[in-house]
Amino acid sequence: MVTRPADDLARTIRTIPGFPKPGIMFRDITTLLKDKDAFARAADILVQRYQNERIEKVVCVESRGYILGAVMASRLHAGFVPVRKPGKLPAQTLREEYQLEYGVDALEIHTDAIQKGERVVVHDDLLATGGTAAATCRLIERLGGVIVGVSFLIELDFLRGRERLGDLDIFSIIRYDRE
Amino acid sequence: MVTRPADDLARTIRTIPGFPKPGIMFRDITTLLKDKDAFARAADILVQRYQNERIEKVVCVESRGYILGAVMASRLHAGFVPVRKPGKLPAQTLREEYQLEYGVDALEIHTDAIQKGERVVVHDDLLATGGTAAATCRLIERLGGVIVGVSFLIELDFLRGRERLGDLDIFSIIRYDRE
Repeated sequence: MVTRPADDLARTIRTIPGFPKPGIMFRDITTLLKDKDAFARAADILVQRYQNERIEKVVCVESRGYILGAVMASRLHAGFVPVRKPGKLPAQTLREEYQLEYGVDALEIHTDAIQKGERVVVHDDLLATGGTAAATCRLIERLGGVIVGVSFLIELDFLRGRERLGDLDIFSIIRYDRE
Repeated sequence: MVTRPADDLARTIRTIPGFPKPGIMFRDITTLLKDKDAFARAADILVQRYQNERIEKVVCVESRGYILGAVMASRLHAGFVPVRKPGKLPAQTLREEYQLEYGVDALEIHTDAIQKGERVVVHDDLLATGGTAAATCRLIERLGGVIVGVSFLIELDFLRGRERLGDLDIFSIIRYDRE
Protein backbone atom coordinates (compact mmCIF):
# COMPACT_ATOMS: atom_id res chain seq x y z
CA MET A 1 0.00 0.00 0.00
CA VAL A 2 1.27 3.46 -0.83
CA THR A 3 -0.24 6.51 0.77
CA ARG A 4 0.79 9.88 -0.48
CA PRO A 5 0.61 12.68 0.39
CA ALA A 6 -1.20 11.76 3.60
CA ASP A 7 0.03 8.74 5.57
CA ASP A 8 -1.61 9.97 8.74
CA LEU A 9 -4.99 10.24 7.04
CA ALA A 10 -4.66 6.77 5.51
CA ARG A 11 -4.34 5.35 9.02
CA THR A 12 -7.83 6.64 9.87
CA ILE A 13 -9.40 4.54 7.10
CA ARG A 14 -10.74 1.14 8.09
CA THR A 15 -10.34 -1.80 5.72
CA ILE A 16 -13.14 -4.37 5.76
CA PRO A 17 -12.35 -7.59 3.88
CA GLY A 18 -15.21 -9.20 1.96
CA PHE A 19 -17.60 -6.22 1.80
CA PRO A 20 -19.88 -5.96 -0.09
CA LYS A 21 -18.83 -9.32 -1.54
CA PRO A 22 -16.02 -11.87 -1.16
CA GLY A 23 -12.66 -10.78 -2.51
CA ILE A 24 -13.18 -7.05 -2.06
CA MET A 25 -11.07 -5.09 0.43
CA PHE A 26 -13.52 -2.31 1.25
CA ARG A 27 -11.98 1.00 2.26
CA ASP A 28 -14.35 2.41 4.88
CA ILE A 29 -14.04 6.19 5.08
CA THR A 30 -16.52 6.60 7.96
CA THR A 31 -13.67 6.25 10.45
CA LEU A 32 -11.89 9.18 8.81
CA LEU A 33 -15.05 11.29 8.60
CA LYS A 34 -16.02 10.86 12.24
CA ASP A 35 -12.52 11.94 13.38
CA LYS A 36 -12.84 15.72 13.44
CA ASP A 37 -9.14 16.31 12.89
CA ALA A 38 -8.83 13.84 10.02
CA PHE A 39 -11.99 15.24 8.42
CA ALA A 40 -10.63 18.78 8.71
CA ARG A 41 -7.26 17.78 7.30
CA ALA A 42 -8.79 16.00 4.28
CA ALA A 43 -10.85 19.11 3.56
CA ASP A 44 -7.80 21.35 3.96
CA ILE A 45 -5.81 19.31 1.43
CA LEU A 46 -8.59 19.50 -1.15
CA VAL A 47 -9.24 23.19 -0.62
CA GLN A 48 -5.55 24.07 -0.84
CA ARG A 49 -5.29 22.23 -4.12
CA TYR A 50 -7.96 24.40 -5.81
CA GLN A 51 -8.04 27.64 -3.86
CA ASN A 52 -6.30 29.69 -6.53
CA GLU A 53 -8.27 28.21 -9.42
CA ARG A 54 -11.34 30.49 -9.31
CA ILE A 55 -13.68 27.49 -9.01
CA GLU A 56 -17.34 28.38 -9.61
CA LYS A 57 -19.01 25.00 -9.14
CA VAL A 58 -18.07 21.78 -7.35
CA VAL A 59 -19.79 18.83 -9.03
CA CYS A 60 -20.27 15.98 -6.56
CA VAL A 61 -21.21 12.37 -7.22
CA GLU A 62 -24.01 10.90 -5.08
CA SER A 63 -23.79 10.04 -2.29
CA ARG A 64 -20.40 9.86 -0.59
CA GLY A 65 -19.01 12.43 -2.99
CA TYR A 66 -21.38 14.95 -1.45
CA ILE A 67 -19.54 14.95 1.87
CA LEU A 68 -16.12 16.44 1.17
CA GLY A 69 -17.45 17.97 -2.06
CA ALA A 70 -19.88 20.14 -0.10
CA VAL A 71 -17.09 21.28 2.20
CA MET A 72 -14.95 22.14 -0.83
CA ALA A 73 -17.80 24.15 -2.38
CA SER A 74 -18.40 26.01 0.86
CA ARG A 75 -14.75 26.85 1.49
CA LEU A 76 -14.03 27.74 -2.16
CA HIS A 77 -17.18 29.91 -2.15
CA ALA A 78 -18.51 27.97 -5.11
CA GLY A 79 -21.91 26.49 -5.89
CA PHE A 80 -22.67 22.83 -5.14
CA VAL A 81 -23.95 20.63 -8.00
CA PRO A 82 -25.11 17.03 -7.46
CA VAL A 83 -24.79 14.25 -10.02
CA ARG A 84 -27.35 11.57 -9.23
CA LYS A 85 -28.71 8.19 -10.26
CA PRO A 86 -31.55 8.34 -12.85
CA GLY A 87 -34.93 9.61 -11.76
CA LYS A 88 -33.81 11.49 -8.67
CA LEU A 89 -33.28 14.97 -10.10
CA PRO A 90 -36.66 16.62 -10.59
CA ALA A 91 -36.04 19.13 -13.42
CA GLN A 92 -34.67 18.73 -16.95
CA THR A 93 -31.56 16.54 -17.02
CA LEU A 94 -28.81 15.16 -19.21
CA ARG A 95 -27.90 11.50 -18.85
CA GLU A 96 -24.72 9.50 -19.40
CA GLU A 97 -24.45 5.74 -19.18
CA TYR A 98 -21.42 3.82 -17.95
CA GLN A 99 -20.42 0.18 -17.81
CA LEU A 100 -20.66 -1.90 -14.67
CA GLU A 101 -19.06 -5.30 -14.18
CA TYR A 102 -22.42 -6.71 -15.29
CA GLY A 103 -24.67 -4.35 -17.25
CA VAL A 104 -24.89 -0.58 -17.42
CA ASP A 105 -25.85 2.21 -15.07
CA ALA A 106 -26.38 5.92 -15.64
CA LEU A 107 -25.91 9.32 -14.02
CA GLU A 108 -27.84 12.55 -14.48
CA ILE A 109 -27.22 16.26 -14.03
CA HIS A 110 -29.66 19.16 -14.24
CA THR A 111 -29.28 21.02 -17.53
CA ASP A 112 -29.25 24.35 -15.65
CA ALA A 113 -26.60 23.21 -13.14
CA ILE A 114 -23.62 24.69 -14.99
CA GLN A 115 -23.30 27.70 -17.27
CA LYS A 116 -21.14 27.49 -20.37
CA GLY A 117 -17.55 28.40 -19.52
CA GLU A 118 -17.89 27.96 -15.75
CA ARG A 119 -14.83 26.62 -13.97
CA VAL A 120 -15.65 23.31 -12.31
CA VAL A 121 -13.97 20.81 -10.04
CA VAL A 122 -15.38 17.29 -9.70
CA HIS A 123 -15.36 15.37 -6.43
CA ASP A 124 -16.07 11.78 -5.47
CA ASP A 125 -14.86 9.75 -2.53
CA LEU A 126 -13.34 6.94 -4.61
CA LEU A 127 -11.62 6.52 -7.98
CA ALA A 128 -11.86 2.81 -8.84
CA THR A 129 -12.37 1.82 -12.50
CA GLY A 130 -13.27 5.41 -13.39
CA GLY A 131 -16.66 4.74 -14.97
CA THR A 132 -18.66 7.15 -12.83
CA ALA A 133 -15.98 9.84 -12.96
CA ALA A 134 -15.75 9.63 -16.74
CA ALA A 135 -19.55 9.81 -17.09
CA THR A 136 -19.63 12.81 -14.75
CA CYS A 137 -16.99 14.60 -16.82
CA ARG A 138 -18.92 13.93 -20.04
CA LEU A 139 -22.02 15.51 -18.46
CA ILE A 140 -20.06 18.62 -17.51
CA GLU A 141 -18.50 18.89 -20.95
CA ARG A 142 -21.91 18.60 -22.62
CA LEU A 143 -23.02 21.60 -20.55
CA GLY A 144 -19.94 23.57 -21.59
CA GLY A 145 -18.25 23.55 -18.20
CA VAL A 146 -14.47 23.82 -17.92
CA ILE A 147 -13.13 20.92 -15.84
CA VAL A 148 -10.26 22.36 -13.84
CA GLY A 149 -9.69 19.13 -11.92
CA VAL A 150 -11.14 15.84 -10.73
CA SER A 151 -10.59 15.04 -7.05
CA PHE A 152 -10.95 11.99 -4.86
CA LEU A 153 -10.37 11.07 -1.27
CA ILE A 154 -9.14 7.60 -2.31
CA GLU A 155 -7.72 6.20 -5.54
CA LEU A 156 -7.24 2.49 -6.25
CA ASP A 157 -4.24 2.76 -8.58
CA PHE A 158 -4.31 -0.91 -9.58
CA LEU A 159 -7.72 -0.47 -11.27
CA ARG A 160 -6.26 2.19 -13.58
CA GLY A 161 -9.32 4.45 -13.46
CA ARG A 162 -7.06 7.43 -14.11
CA GLU A 163 -6.45 6.19 -17.64
CA ARG A 164 -10.14 6.57 -18.46
CA LEU A 165 -10.05 10.28 -17.65
CA GLY A 166 -7.78 11.27 -20.54
CA ASP A 167 -5.85 14.47 -20.07
CA LEU A 168 -7.84 15.75 -17.10
CA ASP A 169 -5.98 16.83 -13.98
CA ILE A 170 -6.59 14.11 -11.37
CA PHE A 171 -5.90 14.52 -7.67
CA SER A 172 -6.35 11.91 -4.93
CA ILE A 173 -5.47 12.31 -1.28
CA ILE A 174 -4.80 8.63 -0.56
CA ARG A 175 -3.68 6.08 -3.14
CA TYR A 176 -3.55 2.29 -2.85
CA ASP A 177 -1.30 0.47 -5.30
CA ARG A 178 -2.72 -2.97 -4.49
CA GLU A 179 -5.78 -4.45 -2.84
CA MET B 1 -46.36 29.80 2.28
CA VAL B 2 -44.43 31.19 5.21
CA THR B 3 -40.69 31.55 5.11
CA ARG B 4 -38.85 32.46 8.23
CA PRO B 5 -36.17 33.41 8.99
CA ALA B 6 -34.97 33.42 5.38
CA ASP B 7 -37.28 34.81 2.69
CA ASP B 8 -34.39 35.46 0.35
CA LEU B 9 -33.23 31.86 0.59
CA ALA B 10 -36.74 30.54 0.00
CA ARG B 11 -36.78 32.37 -3.31
CA THR B 12 -33.83 30.29 -4.52
CA ILE B 13 -35.81 27.05 -4.11
CA ARG B 14 -37.59 25.74 -7.19
CA THR B 15 -41.01 24.14 -6.83
CA ILE B 16 -41.80 21.31 -9.25
CA PRO B 17 -45.45 20.22 -9.27
CA GLY B 18 -46.11 16.51 -9.72
CA PHE B 19 -42.68 15.15 -8.83
CA PRO B 20 -42.08 12.32 -8.07
CA LYS B 21 -45.81 11.65 -8.41
CA PRO B 22 -49.02 13.57 -9.07
CA GLY B 23 -50.20 15.83 -6.26
CA ILE B 24 -46.76 16.46 -4.76
CA MET B 25 -45.24 19.96 -4.83
CA PHE B 26 -41.57 19.02 -4.85
CA ARG B 27 -39.22 21.56 -3.27
CA ASP B 28 -36.05 21.35 -5.36
CA ILE B 29 -33.04 22.54 -3.36
CA THR B 30 -30.54 22.18 -6.21
CA THR B 31 -31.24 25.77 -7.28
CA LEU B 32 -30.28 26.96 -3.80
CA LEU B 33 -27.17 24.76 -3.63
CA LYS B 34 -25.77 25.85 -6.98
CA ASP B 35 -26.11 29.53 -6.01
CA LYS B 36 -22.85 30.15 -4.12
CA ASP B 37 -24.29 33.00 -2.05
CA ALA B 38 -27.46 31.14 -1.10
CA PHE B 39 -25.44 28.02 -0.27
CA ALA B 40 -23.10 30.07 1.91
CA ARG B 41 -25.97 31.80 3.66
CA ALA B 42 -27.79 28.55 4.46
CA ALA B 43 -24.57 27.18 5.94
CA ASP B 44 -24.02 30.37 7.95
CA ILE B 45 -27.49 30.17 9.47
CA LEU B 46 -26.99 26.55 10.54
CA VAL B 47 -23.50 27.13 11.91
CA GLN B 48 -24.56 30.21 13.87
CA ARG B 49 -27.35 28.23 15.48
CA TYR B 50 -24.96 25.64 16.96
CA GLN B 51 -21.60 27.34 17.20
CA ASN B 52 -21.69 27.77 20.97
CA GLU B 53 -23.04 24.28 21.66
CA ARG B 54 -19.73 22.35 21.72
CA ILE B 55 -20.98 19.95 19.03
CA GLU B 56 -18.77 16.86 18.65
CA LYS B 57 -20.61 15.00 15.87
CA VAL B 58 -22.99 16.02 13.10
CA VAL B 59 -25.20 13.06 12.16
CA CYS B 60 -26.40 13.38 8.56
CA VAL B 61 -29.13 11.45 6.78
CA GLU B 62 -28.28 10.02 3.35
CA SER B 63 -28.08 11.49 0.84
CA ARG B 64 -29.17 15.14 0.66
CA GLY B 65 -28.59 15.53 4.38
CA TYR B 66 -24.89 15.00 3.72
CA ILE B 67 -24.55 18.29 1.87
CA LEU B 68 -25.17 21.01 4.42
CA GLY B 69 -24.48 18.52 7.22
CA ALA B 70 -20.89 18.11 6.03
CA VAL B 71 -20.42 21.86 5.90
CA MET B 72 -21.80 22.15 9.44
CA ALA B 73 -19.42 19.45 10.69
CA SER B 74 -16.47 21.13 9.01
CA ARG B 75 -17.23 24.60 10.30
CA LEU B 76 -18.15 23.43 13.81
CA HIS B 77 -14.93 21.36 13.86
CA ALA B 78 -16.97 18.24 14.58
CA GLY B 79 -16.88 14.73 13.13
CA PHE B 80 -19.23 13.70 10.33
CA VAL B 81 -21.46 10.63 10.85
CA PRO B 82 -23.65 9.20 8.08
CA VAL B 83 -26.97 7.45 8.65
CA ARG B 84 -27.68 5.21 5.67
CA LYS B 85 -30.16 2.79 4.16
CA PRO B 86 -29.67 -0.87 5.17
CA GLY B 87 -26.68 -2.77 3.81
CA LYS B 88 -24.58 0.24 2.88
CA LEU B 89 -22.51 0.68 6.04
CA PRO B 90 -19.78 -1.97 6.09
CA ALA B 91 -19.04 -2.43 9.81
CA GLN B 92 -21.27 -3.32 12.78
CA THR B 93 -24.50 -1.31 12.77
CA LEU B 94 -27.67 -0.58 14.69
CA ARG B 95 -30.93 -0.44 12.76
CA GLU B 96 -34.22 1.38 13.25
CA GLU B 97 -37.32 0.89 11.14
CA TYR B 98 -39.82 3.58 10.26
CA GLN B 99 -43.20 3.68 8.54
CA LEU B 100 -43.68 4.71 4.95
CA GLU B 101 -47.00 5.50 3.32
CA TYR B 102 -46.99 1.87 2.20
CA GLY B 103 -44.72 -0.47 4.15
CA VAL B 104 -41.61 0.09 6.23
CA ASP B 105 -38.06 1.20 5.59
CA ALA B 106 -35.01 1.29 7.85
CA LEU B 107 -31.89 3.29 8.62
CA GLU B 108 -28.55 2.19 10.02
CA ILE B 109 -25.67 3.76 11.91
CA HIS B 110 -22.25 2.31 12.75
CA THR B 111 -22.11 1.25 16.39
CA ASP B 112 -18.75 3.02 16.78
CA ALA B 113 -19.98 6.28 15.22
CA ILE B 114 -20.82 8.03 18.48
CA GLN B 115 -19.35 7.72 21.97
CA LYS B 116 -21.61 7.74 24.99
CA GLY B 117 -22.22 11.33 26.12
CA GLU B 118 -21.07 13.00 22.88
CA ARG B 119 -22.93 16.14 21.92
CA VAL B 120 -24.65 15.64 18.57
CA VAL B 121 -26.64 17.68 16.10
CA VAL B 122 -28.72 15.93 13.43
CA HIS B 123 -29.11 17.30 9.92
CA ASP B 124 -31.35 16.43 6.97
CA ASP B 125 -32.50 18.55 4.07
CA LEU B 126 -36.24 18.05 4.69
CA LEU B 127 -38.57 17.54 7.63
CA ALA B 128 -41.77 16.04 6.22
CA THR B 129 -43.65 13.43 8.27
CA GLY B 130 -40.66 13.02 10.57
CA GLY B 131 -40.20 9.27 10.19
CA THR B 132 -36.56 9.32 9.16
CA ALA B 133 -35.65 12.03 11.67
CA ALA B 134 -37.29 10.12 14.52
CA ALA B 135 -35.52 6.89 13.51
CA THR B 136 -32.21 8.76 13.32
CA CYS B 137 -32.71 10.19 16.80
CA ARG B 138 -33.53 6.73 18.19
CA LEU B 139 -30.25 5.41 16.74
CA ILE B 140 -28.28 8.22 18.40
CA GLU B 141 -30.03 7.68 21.73
CA ARG B 142 -29.29 3.94 21.62
CA LEU B 143 -25.59 4.81 21.27
CA GLY B 144 -25.79 7.20 24.23
CA GLY B 145 -25.36 10.40 22.23
CA VAL B 146 -26.79 13.67 23.54
CA ILE B 147 -29.01 15.25 20.87
CA VAL B 148 -28.46 18.98 21.16
CA GLY B 149 -30.64 19.77 18.15
CA VAL B 150 -32.22 18.50 14.96
CA SER B 151 -31.79 20.75 11.92
CA PHE B 152 -33.34 20.98 8.47
CA LEU B 153 -33.06 23.18 5.44
CA ILE B 154 -36.82 22.86 4.79
CA GLU B 155 -39.76 21.96 7.01
CA LEU B 156 -43.24 21.13 5.71
CA ASP B 157 -45.23 22.37 8.71
CA PHE B 158 -48.53 20.95 7.47
CA LEU B 159 -47.20 17.37 7.76
CA ARG B 160 -46.57 17.89 11.48
CA GLY B 161 -43.27 15.98 11.52
CA ARG B 162 -42.15 18.14 14.43
CA GLU B 163 -44.69 16.44 16.66
CA ARG B 164 -42.98 13.08 16.18
CA LEU B 165 -39.72 14.40 17.59
CA GLY B 166 -40.98 14.92 21.14
CA ASP B 167 -39.10 17.44 23.22
CA LEU B 168 -36.09 17.71 20.93
CA ASP B 169 -34.96 21.15 19.81
CA ILE B 170 -35.95 21.47 16.14
CA PHE B 171 -34.61 24.13 13.79
CA SER B 172 -35.53 24.65 10.13
CA ILE B 173 -34.31 27.43 7.88
CA ILE B 174 -37.34 27.55 5.57
CA ARG B 175 -40.86 26.50 6.57
CA TYR B 176 -43.89 25.93 4.34
CA ASP B 177 -47.27 26.03 6.04
CA ARG B 178 -49.13 24.53 3.06
CA GLU B 179 -48.37 22.64 -0.07
